[in-house]
Amino acid sequence: MTLRYDVLGLGNAIVDVLARTEDDFLVAHGLAKGSMRLIEEAEAERLYAAMGPARIISGGSAANTIVGVASLGGSAAFVGKVKTDEVGRLFTHDIRAAGVAFDGSPAADGAATARSFILVTPDGERTMNTYLGACRDLGPDDVDPDAVRASRIVYMEGYLWDPPAAKDAFRKAATVAHAAGNAVALTLSDSFCVDRYRDEFLGLLRDGSVDVLFANEHELKSLYATADFDTALAELRNEKVLAAVTRSEKGSVVVARGETLSVPAHPVEKLVDTTGAGDLFAAGFLYGLARGAAHVDCARLGALAAAEIIQHMGARPEVRLKDLAAESGFAL
Amino acid sequence: MTLRYDVLGLGNAIVDVLARTEDDFLVAHGLAKGSMRLIEEAEAERLYAAMGPARIISGGSAANTIVGVASLGGSAAFVGKVKTDEVGRLFTHDIRAAGVAFDGSPAADGAATARSFILVTPDGERTMNTYLGACRDLGPDDVDPDAVRASRIVYMEGYLWDPPAAKDAFRKAATVAHAAGNAVALTLSDSFCVDRYRDEFLGLLRDGSVDVLFANEHELKSLYATADFDTALAELRNEKVLAAVTRSEKGSVVVARGETLSVPAHPVEKLVDTTGAGDLFAAGFLYGLARGAAHVDCARLGALAAAEIIQHMGARPEVRLKDLAAESGFAL
Repeated sequence: MTLRYDVLGLGNAIVDVLARTEDDFLVAHGLAKGSMRLIEEAEAERLYAAMGPARIISGGSAANTIVGVASLGGSAAFVGKVKTDEVGRLFTHDIRAAGVAFDGSPAADGAATARSFILVTPDGERTMNTYLGACRDLGPDDVDPDAVRASRIVYMEGYLWDPPAAKDAFRKAATVAHAAGNAVALTLSDSFCVDRYRDEFLGLLRDGSVDVLFANEHELKSLYATADFDTALAELRNEKVLAAVTRSEKGSVVVARGETLSVPAHPVEKLVDTTGAGDLFAAGFLYGLARGAAHVDCARLGALAAAEIIQHMGARPEVRLKDLAAESGFAL
Repeated sequence: MTLRYDVLGLGNAIVDVLARTEDDFLVAHGLAKGSMRLIEEAEAERLYAAMGPARIISGGSAANTIVGVASLGGSAAFVGKVKTDEVGRLFTHDIRAAGVAFDGSPAADGAATARSFILVTPDGERTMNTYLGACRDLGPDDVDPDAVRASRIVYMEGYLWDPPAAKDAFRKAATVAHAAGNAVALTLSDSFCVDRYRDEFLGLLRDGSVDVLFANEHELKSLYATADFDTALAELRNEKVLAAVTRSEKGSVVVARGETLSVPAHPVEKLVDTTGAGDLFAAGFLYGLARGAAHVDCARLGALAAAEIIQHMGARPEVRLKDLAAESGFAL
């Protein structure tokens, strides 16, 4: 079968509502800085009324990654669930306008398209409050086996464990991908998410469901229930996966077959908003991987894409990453 | 009567849909770079489908100015017409969250809340395509005479001449303001807009309806139907208004009682998107004026506010302008 896509992503289809805020606001509302928490509609209304003027930009962790892959020049597809409402049309417009195939059927009724209320503090850190809405309807029927078979890599987010049937969509996609000889990648998403589903995530690494793992420092420590990064890294070396661990300004660590490789962060003029940093690192890494680049170059491409995203509000690239990569000497 | 507001703004309530684009796109769609054109719903749909991934940020020329006044620490109110739809709720949330009084009644039915599709080219210039929708319902009944009497300055946009009854709202507000001894300010909005209503705008300057005038170079030349800036400036010196003319990186020129004053632009690290540059200049100038600052300081405050807005996407400030002004030594 011809491989149509470098990467197919499966994730929650979310539109971000981003506002700048002071640290006091997080404290007053009992929010844990840097994390993602799930909220219901009433809390969404309450929080929106209390928060400052906002920018609306399409988001969703895996969706951001897939848009990043397309922006780098890769061929990419996304599977996620929106409703046929104003916000759903916005998500659909943006991901298609980015050059991503997005062919699933939107829900005609039920809960509204998902949105994440993201509070950005003066240090650039983001704290997310997500109303999942229509994402709760994502299930195995949304996964088109032909599209999965036609994709070099299938990329999925740990957040898929939150809605009821999305993990079954994940399992179906992983099975189909492996049967076709393609790779399966997973991001751990968020340390609290790892805390909710630790055993299942470890199971995916150990039963061969996942070939490539993305995590940040906090998520990795949460996975191995340790406060010490080196302990977590030692555990990771024992897993039979290719893993990329991001460490903010300390760069990233790539672990492959017991070997460890450190790659520095890409220089940044001004940190504005970290929303999407991990998602775009994954975009660069996956694109490099799909095009057969060495791991060090995959991580450098990831660092380059992450550096672009943290210098403006929102988790979708504002310039063509392909041009940025070319300026930095990448030829993929 | 106690003056509750430094500035009350009257304008079209619009939400901006901003996308980056190449110059080719403008050429292919026959768009005049840097201008604003009015479009109907079908053209809005067509253009949105063709344009790239977008950011949604509240806008509207006078509304941006009023938010700027509030961000500088001023007390401010805005009058404009939205519908009770998703986009109308967004506009309402954002302007209130910015600290602006926005108490008018939204339209329960009729056309959708207005949106402007803004194409930002690599040079940072913006080209606007505006669907007026619910703004067409703005009329004199929306102007609360008590609020106008309670405002030091009433600020209105030339764009109000586009919808059918908004200019009557303008005239009512101007009459009430002058009867209360308050000032009336007008921005010429756009050179094509000036072309549509040249005689009426000149009439407003000459019959005493307007005390303070804002224009950019192109609008001023359009007003006096000349290609030469100095000729236009000489004509302006004969009008009995205080005028501030913005000239992008060349700064601004203030004309008062036949005297001319040049004020440099505020330094900018990186020009990203000029959307709102004129609106935010007006914000700084009006806030200074309302607080009794010298004209040179009004223009410097305007330059400072404009410099903030052109360094990111969208025409609403991303930081508190009051803090920026304080850092630059303003004490108002």
